[in-house]
Amino acid sequence: MTDAPSEWRPLHWTGESLVIVDQTALPDEERLVECRTIDDVAAAIREMRVRGAPAIGISAVAGLALAVQGAAREGGDWRRALSAGEALLASTRPTAADLFHGLQVARERVASAVDAAEAAHLLGQLVLELLDRQWAIDRALADYGAGLLRSGTRVLTHCNTGALGTGAFGTALGIIRRAYELGRLEHVWVTETRPRLQGARLTVWELRRSGIPHTLIVDGAAPFLLARGEVDAVLVGADRVAANGDVANKIGTLGLAVAAERFRVPFYVAAPLSTFDPETPDGNAIPIEERDPAEVLRVKGTWIAPADTPVRNPAFDVTPHWLVTALVTERGIIPAPDRRKIANFLAANGRGTSVEPGETGRDER
Amino acid sequence: MTDAPSEWRPLHWTGESLVIVDQTALPDEERLVECRTIDDVAAAIREMRVRGAPAIGISAVAGLALAVQGAAREGGDWRRALSAGEALLASTRPTAADLFHGLQVARERVASAVDAAEAAHLLGQLVLELLDRQWAIDRALADYGAGLLRSGTRVLTHCNTGALGTGAFGTALGIIRRAYELGRLEHVWVTETRPRLQGARLTVWELRRSGIPHTLIVDGAAPFLLARGEVDAVLVGADRVAANGDVANKIGTLGLAVAAERFRVPFYVAAPLSTFDPETPDGNAIPIEERDPAEVLRVKGTWIAPADTPVRNPAFDVTPHWLVTALVTERGIIPAPDRRKIANFLAANGRGTSVEPGETGRDER
Repeated sequence: MTDAPSEWRPLHWTGESLVIVDQTALPDEERLVECRTIDDVAAAIREMRVRGAPAIGISAVAGLALAVQGAAREGGDWRRALSAGEALLASTRPTAADLFHGLQVARERVASAVDAAEAAHLLGQLVLELLDRQWAIDRALADYGAGLLRSGTRVLTHCNTGALGTGAFGTALGIIRRAYELGRLEHVWVTETRPRLQGARLTVWELRRSGIPHTLIVDGAAPFLLARGEVDAVLVGADRVAANGDVANKIGTLGLAVAAERFRVPFYVAAPLSTFDPETPDGNAIPIEERDPAEVLRVKGTWIAPADTPVRNPAFDVTPHWLVTALVTERGIIPAPDRRKIANFLAANGRGTSVEPGETGRDER
Repeated sequence: MTDAPSEWRPLHWTGESLVIVDQTALPDEERLVECRTIDDVAAAIREMRVRGAPAIGISAVAGLALAVQGAAREGGDWRRALSAGEALLASTRPTAADLFHGLQVARERVASAVDAAEAAHLLGQLVLELLDRQWAIDRALADYGAGLLRSGTRVLTHCNTGALGTGAFGTALGIIRRAYELGRLEHVWVTETRPRLQGARLTVWELRRSGIPHTLIVDGAAPFLLARGEVDAVLVGADRVAANGDVANKIGTLGLAVAAERFRVPFYVAAPLSTFDPETPDGNAIPIEERDPAEVLRVKGTWIAPADTPVRNPAFDVTPHWLVTALVTERGIIPAPDRRKIANFLAANGRGTSVEPGETGRDER
């Protein structure tokens, strides 16, 4: 199914391990990490060696596959191993919908497996399918998104939503790559994205690889550029989209949305269907992961303030749906999203079927 | 004139040098730097060893005093040394109004000096006067500002506007200190303030010294806290206030103002009269200093992205006056500032007289 097999990929399933490009080592080093157990995968997700909502979702399924393989090898109870694995993975990054979506898809795939060997085989197959399908999802989403941009567009993006974030072509950064392929993209403003600097470390690295013109700014400089008319569109990803269209995404997204509204710049959210969570009624119900203060206090090993400085470090914020110009999915655009439009869109598109044909979407339960 | 002579001060005039606490070394080290020539002072301002609009203004006058002392010692043309010094200092940080205000006050002070020795003496006296008067200005401003805050207030502040920024009590942080003295302040949210981390390095350090409860956040987290109702007021400083009330301040300020408006939180700007520039009609006319890309790319010596990454690094942004709930000065409050209110306020308060009684304000020329 892959239409660009030579394309560089940051996630590989070997059949008995998940090999990832360690995103905490980039851009200094392109270090591969081989996860051979579910514990390895859970640690890689928690430590953000693999990150980005879709990449987390696929990695989680790989983790379950490794857990069931372990049970098969050791003669353990594979259903118990699966449940324990789900609980472990669910605790790693509570905000991303893709994680929970991946766990659910995996459970459904092995519902009728007769033994550990069959379950392990099915889950291994699922990882490969998800990796392939993510490419198709990303490309379709990128086509829809690029259709929103006119020639000469200068976009601003936040965090990393590229190949590193999905294991495939990228979501918001996929739109940027596609618009550049089509000759429509003039420039990309990249916010550094404190505290973990995914923009400075990862997005700059990907744009450089793709030869796309870009400029790095601190997060606080984005409203200045928006006010001065130097940005034609803001493009970000999503970690979870609630039933009413509220969007959880990397901390700093809300400020971009508010400034984009104020200075009349369109604010687009690239959100594969796997990020939609119809069971979460609105943004208030999305759990916001609070991470280690050391992420703020220590930049690449260097302390910027005393280690005992009180810190609040929410990993995500929630952008209300009324600040979103449009959601961009792999099945089309949802302009000015609200509860009714999203419900209709999901119903019309059989939510989740693009990832797993046999699946029953959570919204249909 | 000092009403708290025992208070710690980051700027000292010895009569033949300006001794500063090196703000680039804080909080790791409380290192003193002695500036013995105008070149030393200009370098200290440019490298931000001394920073903050009022502290820069006073340091600039000290620089001129040292230039004229040099001419007196070496028998040079002191008026030429003064002019050359003004040009050098004006090039260091083009955005801050206080710098130009200081240069003007100095020139007027020595207008009728008969020789280098007298001019040097007058300028040395002026430095001491300005240091003393800044204390009175800061305290008066802090009283007006604290009057805006109710009991139990949780404020959010950006960059550093404390003793380090004025050489005295502080402006926005002075209001916070005063509100805390009065028992009205519950908590301070401190934005780290990329790229130079003045919030994380300097404001946290000052708040800790004063025992005021505080929590550090990344800049991008501020809108999240504003949206969640965890902030009762945003308090920032000003580097220049245009005739219509537009405010140039540290990059990131505009985003705070937009988010504060959106989530209905008052946005107060602490602006001593020395920051008002009636000759600048509006924000578009304020020159915005663009600084070295390395400030963004290198955090305390550690590179976060390749050294050749394209970077835009504006040191300031401009907040339009219609986003400002009130300007707080040492002579009172200007609510919902606009051109007319500011003109009337300056006329009623003899702009500049609080700093230098004999001066002709630039707005009156």
